[in-house]
Amino acid sequence: MWADLAPVGRSAASGGYFRQPFLSAERELAAWFEEQARARGLEVETDAFGNTVAWWRTGSGPGLLTGSHLDSVLDGGAYDGPLGVVSALAALDRLRERGVEPGRPIGVAVFVEEEGSRFGLACLGSRLATGAVSWDAARELRDRDGTALGDVVEGTDASPLLGDVGAYVELHVEQGRDLVDRGAAVGAGSGIWPHGRYRFDFDGEANHAGTTRMEDRADPMLTCAMTLLAANKQARLLDARATFGRVEVVPNGTNAVPSRVRAWLDARCATPEVLDTLVGAVGRQARERAERDGTTVQVTPESVSGAVGFDAELTGRAAEPSWPVVPTAAGHDAGVLAAAGVPTAMLFVRNPTGVSHSPAESAEMADCLAGVEALADALERLGS
Amino acid sequence: MWADLAPVGRSAASGGYFRQPFLSAERELAAWFEEQARARGLEVETDAFGNTVAWWRTGSGPGLLTGSHLDSVLDGGAYDGPLGVVSALAALDRLRERGVEPGRPIGVAVFVEEEGSRFGLACLGSRLATGAVSWDAARELRDRDGTALGDVVEGTDASPLLGDVGAYVELHVEQGRDLVDRGAAVGAGSGIWPHGRYRFDFDGEANHAGTTRMEDRADPMLTCAMTLLAANKQARLLDARATFGRVEVVPNGTNAVPSRVRAWLDARCATPEVLDTLVGAVGRQARERAERDGTTVQVTPESVSGAVGFDAELTGRAAEPSWPVVPTAAGHDAGVLAAAGVPTAMLFVRNPTGVSHSPAESAEMADCLAGVEALADALERLGS
Repeated sequence: MWADLAPVGRSAASGGYFRQPFLSAERELAAWFEEQARARGLEVETDAFGNTVAWWRTGSGPGLLTGSHLDSVLDGGAYDGPLGVVSALAALDRLRERGVEPGRPIGVAVFVEEEGSRFGLACLGSRLATGAVSWDAARELRDRDGTALGDVVEGTDASPLLGDVGAYVELHVEQGRDLVDRGAAVGAGSGIWPHGRYRFDFDGEANHAGTTRMEDRADPMLTCAMTLLAANKQARLLDARATFGRVEVVPNGTNAVPSRVRAWLDARCATPEVLDTLVGAVGRQARERAERDGTTVQVTPESVSGAVGFDAELTGRAAEPSWPVVPTAAGHDAGVLAAAGVPTAMLFVRNPTGVSHSPAESAEMADCLAGVEALADALERLGS
Repeated sequence: MWADLAPVGRSAASGGYFRQPFLSAERELAAWFEEQARARGLEVETDAFGNTVAWWRTGSGPGLLTGSHLDSVLDGGAYDGPLGVVSALAALDRLRERGVEPGRPIGVAVFVEEEGSRFGLACLGSRLATGAVSWDAARELRDRDGTALGDVVEGTDASPLLGDVGAYVELHVEQGRDLVDRGAAVGAGSGIWPHGRYRFDFDGEANHAGTTRMEDRADPMLTCAMTLLAANKQARLLDARATFGRVEVVPNGTNAVPSRVRAWLDARCATPEVLDTLVGAVGRQARERAERDGTTVQVTPESVSGAVGFDAELTGRAAEPSWPVVPTAAGHDAGVLAAAGVPTAMLFVRNPTGVSHSPAESAEMADCLAGVEALADALERLGS
């Protein structure tokens, strides 16, 4: 399966993946998934947004769901998302090889636009499927080219796809190095840090880069630059994470002072209180600097997610007692399902460098296979 | 003429102009110019790059050239460039109304890609026409979409267009407020500050914005941000101009630490020594910060122009003694022709706000008409 996926949406230049939702590479992966599911005799259900569950109709009662996502960030790695989908299919194969006959249906889910790399809202598919976001709100989201989500795909409100789900277990490559530090190939998740995305609009006055005296300028680039540095400093002070990874400049010409700079803050903290403190402090420093620069700044939260604790009882049954239990600062569809009241657990596979959202993301084959065995074990225990 | 030009390439949203070379708005202006020239019985000559001179074949001896450019920066103003072309045509009309019969040919020039807003090298048309840049070097210049100049247009090496030119007088809207301070509608130019464009490549390591500890990052955005602030500070200390108006982030995703940030420094100083000091100091501070951030920085000069002094004798004959003589920190085709040995002068028309390279750029109609009279007077004196 890995050989099937490797070439799809890969940049020859960077080696990274560009698999944005509803574009060709991601659609190719969606078709591949359906083909794999049908080859295994699974029953494929899809909602109007494109979220898909492939069911092994066995046993009775509420279904046991596993899976992940197939989309990537811009220039992302091979494992973030696809490892959970491939491992889920492989774990089903293992259960069948073992002759296991689960007491309840087992489904493999693929959620769309988990990364929010095209329409800006992470976990969009699972948010729509659980009703956490309404289609009326989502349909107006726009990509960088100005295309509205509603013009790309039909929507769905609280799709019927998850109606029969009693529990969700998502396997994911780790995006830090806790498992490396603990010397374990596989671990379980305790929960997800609160996190949010905030758009900073810095507005000033366009002007000639050569002839405008420094003291006559209202240059929003300066306000932005100071804000980027302030966010980094605050995150270090608060033992949190703050990143400005996306910046857009208008008009973005070498010989023009910009009229506007937009930058997006991604902030993650151990508690909601620290998140508020962090974002408040960065906003305050931005406004102070804006006053000096003769610019303005406006901060718009684009998505804010509270802390998520995974289901301890479920995790206790799914995991071996020897597996480390680690938190994560990354958002996941598992967090959305947990917040919607679905008992949820996560399994992580060791990442030797901790690098993720990068072409350099990696995992050892032996660890990936240990992940498949671990997931098969978890599904066997939970499905019995 | 102004009414013809006003709607072409104008953004309804900002009111600014997008007239990039070899794209539809700019080509429409080029066609308009040719039409205007032919309606006046002028003889239109064009080189393979698209630079155009419309000649009034009168008198004999080396020609007297005036004119400017019709392209704009991204989201620029109405006057930068077109004012010089429109005023040149109007000045010819005034000379004919006055019954002047010049003793030498008078030409109106339109140079292509003066702003460098598409292919990055300012005054590209005049540099090619004078042989300051070879077509072999220029053909590989690429726009933001990766299109090579050589695939867009045929080139020219030291085109014959300027073979018969004995002097050049360019009228331009002022891009500062010296004439406002001096209370004059029109002034003459003394020269152009040395200036340059430098590309800064900041390289780090892409990573997950949520899960990567702050101390494990190599975030080029931070190095870039500090460099932007350092450039501003150095320019203030040195009484110079430094601007980072263009920034490009890879991959530019909200939830990814970038792998690379590119930013372009536009620097202008009263002397070449100060320019060296400024660029050297900014580069040093960038490298120091890069060491702290675990990133690297590389500085590439994309174009550097030395100081230009306009021809004092020519300026003395063209200008009224009462006109202020002011320097400019903006580059102009007049600077390229002067550096190529063509006796050159510039006239400036007052700009009430000093704002330029912006939709807010402006000039009073009365001052523009005073500019036409001043240019007609200058051409009459120089052409006799």
